[in-house]
Amino acid sequence: MADLTPNSSFSLTIRFQVPNRPGMLASVIQAISSEGGNIGQIDLIEQTRDISMRDITVDAASTEHAETIVQAVKALPDIKVLDIYDRTFTLHKGGKISVQSKMPLRGQADLAMAYTPGVGRVCRAIAEEPDRVYELTIKHNTIAIVTDGSAVLGLGNLGAEASMPVMEGKAMLFKEFGGLDAFPICLATQSTDEIVETVKRIAPVFGGVNLEDIAAPRCFEIEERLQKELNIPVFHDDQHGTAIVTLAALTNALKLVEKSIFDARIVINGAGAAGVAIAKLLQKDGAGSIVMCDSKGILSTTRTDLNDQKLAFAIAQGGSLVDAMKGADVFLGVSAPGVVTPEMVRSMAAEPIVFAMANPIPEIQPEYVRDDVAVMATGRSDYPNQINNVLAFPGLFRGALDCRASTLTTNMYLQAALAIASLVNPDELHREHIIPSVFDGRVALAVAAAVQKAAREDGVAHA
Amino acid sequence: MADLTPNSSFSLTIRFQVPNRPGMLASVIQAISSEGGNIGQIDLIEQTRDISMRDITVDAASTEHAETIVQAVKALPDIKVLDIYDRTFTLHKGGKISVQSKMPLRGQADLAMAYTPGVGRVCRAIAEEPDRVYELTIKHNTIAIVTDGSAVLGLGNLGAEASMPVMEGKAMLFKEFGGLDAFPICLATQSTDEIVETVKRIAPVFGGVNLEDIAAPRCFEIEERLQKELNIPVFHDDQHGTAIVTLAALTNALKLVEKSIFDARIVINGAGAAGVAIAKLLQKDGAGSIVMCDSKGILSTTRTDLNDQKLAFAIAQGGSLVDAMKGADVFLGVSAPGVVTPEMVRSMAAEPIVFAMANPIPEIQPEYVRDDVAVMATGRSDYPNQINNVLAFPGLFRGALDCRASTLTTNMYLQAALAIASLVNPDELHREHIIPSVFDGRVALAVAAAVQKAAREDGVAHA
Repeated sequence: MADLTPNSSFSLTIRFQVPNRPGMLASVIQAISSEGGNIGQIDLIEQTRDISMRDITVDAASTEHAETIVQAVKALPDIKVLDIYDRTFTLHKGGKISVQSKMPLRGQADLAMAYTPGVGRVCRAIAEEPDRVYELTIKHNTIAIVTDGSAVLGLGNLGAEASMPVMEGKAMLFKEFGGLDAFPICLATQSTDEIVETVKRIAPVFGGVNLEDIAAPRCFEIEERLQKELNIPVFHDDQHGTAIVTLAALTNALKLVEKSIFDARIVINGAGAAGVAIAKLLQKDGAGSIVMCDSKGILSTTRTDLNDQKLAFAIAQGGSLVDAMKGADVFLGVSAPGVVTPEMVRSMAAEPIVFAMANPIPEIQPEYVRDDVAVMATGRSDYPNQINNVLAFPGLFRGALDCRASTLTTNMYLQAALAIASLVNPDELHREHIIPSVFDGRVALAVAAAVQKAAREDGVAHA
Repeated sequence: MADLTPNSSFSLTIRFQVPNRPGMLASVIQAISSEGGNIGQIDLIEQTRDISMRDITVDAASTEHAETIVQAVKALPDIKVLDIYDRTFTLHKGGKISVQSKMPLRGQADLAMAYTPGVGRVCRAIAEEPDRVYELTIKHNTIAIVTDGSAVLGLGNLGAEASMPVMEGKAMLFKEFGGLDAFPICLATQSTDEIVETVKRIAPVFGGVNLEDIAAPRCFEIEERLQKELNIPVFHDDQHGTAIVTLAALTNALKLVEKSIFDARIVINGAGAAGVAIAKLLQKDGAGSIVMCDSKGILSTTRTDLNDQKLAFAIAQGGSLVDAMKGADVFLGVSAPGVVTPEMVRSMAAEPIVFAMANPIPEIQPEYVRDDVAVMATGRSDYPNQINNVLAFPGLFRGALDCRASTLTTNMYLQAALAIASLVNPDELHREHIIPSVFDGRVALAVAAAVQKAAREDGVAHA
């Protein structure tokens, strides 16, 4: 894997000391570069007549690659490696979010207003007029990020505790991109009934529920039941977030190769939460030919092992993913690392579109098929065309909460996707730019506006 | 009630415009003062040759009192009252807490470390070594503030939504005084089993659980079961927080009147969560004579309406609160507004100690018995000697979390109380200063240290 792109997720800071004489720093840099490490920031920590101490930040491509780089540096003559920080782990120390007061408590007057006895009047006002909970508490801006830890990223069933770094990261994204206050609710249960029950019980504090990393098919029922039984928006990001952003990117990719969604042959690999939601949203947008595969191959009507969700997409044709990809115009992968080979990509129709969205390791590394595809996208931030849910969920919830939507409709998802796609102007459209950057400040605003408009059209807005 | 002390919980800002000529401002101030309003900040908003526009902040004693003041101002000749803000409600607009990222997300490198793909390695590290959840997530510093809204302040069963302003205020206090991140969990259930079950399911994210404003006797069972079934500290603040601070204040009050807890006759009115916990902690500290009363009078062994918690404190003597207070050395009220009369206080022993802790309106207003008591305390921030739980819970949780205590012991509560009491030096001890101010920065540190020490003695510390 040493031919993969070094990236910040395997980023190290190496603190070392060398004799203060010409050529020493160059030899360190040379050692790192020749191992394929990508050098970032270099800080001088201390320098005397005799020694130089520096921190050098290096991106590697994997944990093993990082280790190789460290060994190469350690092997240099006269060097003392003083410390090695894994920057990702350092950044996670103590967690990534905090709860802050919006105003200071400087004295008794502040206490008497923010807490007892003054707060009593505010409580009574809400008890008398329940709707004022949206005016006088955090509910109007607060999202529960709910998981059972059963499908953490592409890593599987790691459980509630191990899912927390993802949920905290998600809360950061909600804040940064949507101005929303989100809090992780990581559940020590993986029973559908218990999850539904628990979320309903904690719902009073929240203006919306974002379901995250809950395994299929359980996630479908949980979302459906919660949306039916709660009067706040409930969103399973792994389904609809992925579907919205995939549709946005696919809309622009198809424009680029001048094919239409109505007759493009689309293969979706992965029939879990994301795959099924993508298929549904694509159908709503008019997709005419979708072949879905799971780890056992094409979802075919002759198979006897399909649940209801999968059965809905079963077709007469049988076969493997290899078979499905022959002659296909579009491959959408939401499955597992490395399941697609360069040969399979080369078997597709002319100007193939390949979205390899498995996280953190895609179905096929872009390096392997750079010249074989018309457009390539992944789920990763370190390649072009990142299919990143952060393009959808902050704006979606911003729009839904701002109009107090009681639910989310497929129309709201469609309008969100079109709003994202529309931010790439025709003259900017390019094989490495089919989707706006997650740091494009227009995205959340455009999505929020489109979602609010759709909510009003659909009669689900209440403010 | 117009003879009560004006306080910030009934604080208004009145924006008014008057002709710009001498004596106009004086007449406004005169009108407010003659109605008993307490004038605070005065801001000049705009001034021309013709007019002056000002904001004047006024504390009142009640909502009705505030209205009287506004009417008096409006009745002045030549004045235009432009706006009236209720400062407590204004401060609550949009809620009082927020969730913040600890570091900015400035670009792809930040995303790749804080979120995907980098976060995946952190998740795996926790899955492999579950204890690292304390190192790599917010758990080590995060408290769930759990309520079912069944006993909100002294206001009763207002429900989950209406309890939120209290829980948000509590989160502010956790942050301000303990540096802890606390988040409100307001439950849409008042079933003991469901509350226990729900808290257990959401526990993975939290390093501790603070139960708040849950009615007795349900709260006893909830606390007991949760503490048994979870390996993080569970604290019912209305019980033990109140008990700790009451014992701290009582320790110093008894010093002042030179009586001993062993033979002082102590009456506790209110046999709910707080009353029972106070009685238990006082007994642990050696109290020899406790008479408990509820709304029906003394808890007597002849009564047939007592639950187990109350029965444990039943005595042979029967009678009313009036009977109980005759000759008593100490009255501790955790009951209801106005249930004690000046006559009842005057029937107590020489140098009586009266803690009237009902919130927001005490059992008896201090104004009524100022000259009849040796020491008086209330639960309010606008009188001297505030028995405020904020003296206990931030330091208690700070200490418990810092040593990763798996539970809380009565010894930890006792040591917390003694630590608080010890911060009032003998030469500062005074009838209006038996307990440190909640703004005394030493309190949380002293409590945390005492609690950690006790946890280690008791063998419940795990870090």
